[in-house]
Amino acid sequence: MRGDEDAVIAFPTPANDKAALEEGSVFSPRFDADGLITAVVNDAGDGKLLMVAHMNAEALSKTLTTGIAHYWSRSRQSLWQKGETSGNRQRVVEMRTDCDQDAVELRVRVEGLAATCHTGRRSCFYRIVAMRNGSAELRHDETKPLFETKKVYGK
Amino acid sequence: MRGDEDAVIAFPTPANDKAALEEGSVFSPRFDADGLITAVVNDAGDGKLLMVAHMNAEALSKTLTTGIAHYWSRSRQSLWQKGETSGNRQRVVEMRTDCDQDAVELRVRVEGLAATCHTGRRSCFYRIVAMRNGSAELRHDETKPLFETKKVYGK
Repeated sequence: MRGDEDAVIAFPTPANDKAALEEGSVFSPRFDADGLITAVVNDAGDGKLLMVAHMNAEALSKTLTTGIAHYWSRSRQSLWQKGETSGNRQRVVEMRTDCDQDAVELRVRVEGLAATCHTGRRSCFYRIVAMRNGSAELRHDETKPLFETKKVYGK
Repeated sequence: MRGDEDAVIAFPTPANDKAALEEGSVFSPRFDADGLITAVVNDAGDGKLLMVAHMNAEALSKTLTTGIAHYWSRSRQSLWQKGETSGNRQRVVEMRTDCDQDAVELRVRVEGLAATCHTGRRSCFYRIVAMRNGSAELRHDETKPLFETKKVYGK
């Protein structure tokens, strides 16, 4: 998946037509009030869920034209190429969208140490929510960090 | 995963402490400005991405106490037990949360025909986003609907 890297894709406004949205071949992502769409990122190899992030139109366009995943950081309010600092960049093998086009799935191959989470782990979903005595608590799975965050990010 | 079905879980306010949020065992989901958290729903068997939805505190609580997935419908503005009409209910085998606790992953076993999408398909992500001549278009994968929507939903 790779297009002209400098091009900016102008996504069409979503049709007010349920059948077209759900069964059509026009990609008209439904950005929310903040101009964002949800991106679910899975490993293209074993399908494991790695992270959930958000994309604005620019991030989505750059992801499609470069084949490298870009996101919008809500906390930093800026475009962000995943792995730019850590080396754990994501090559997009396949992108999909859902029935009502308000989310995308990215199937990626992660470069470097393949640690997607900023905590150094392969996946951001390393804790299980478990009920105990009527309340919900978290239990770590066996995943150990693949890198030391201080060495990579300097903090 | 099953607790007291009538109990409502009072989720603690997220700590303003990155280490506690990321490495702690307190489940303090970070609901957004609309009171929602993103839920990524995968098949507990093969890990396939089935759908993306949203949960408010009540939906999250009900999911944890009943072991059946509940969501908040943004379009209908109401609590929604997935599969209540179609029979394709989701039994939660495992729930996880991510590093900053603003998303959950549900690993589910789908009942009935196991068609999660309201279009009758197993997954909502049945279309691939492909670049052609500088623009993005959608291509259906091979998935055929498992039920006829008119028969199930009457519309």
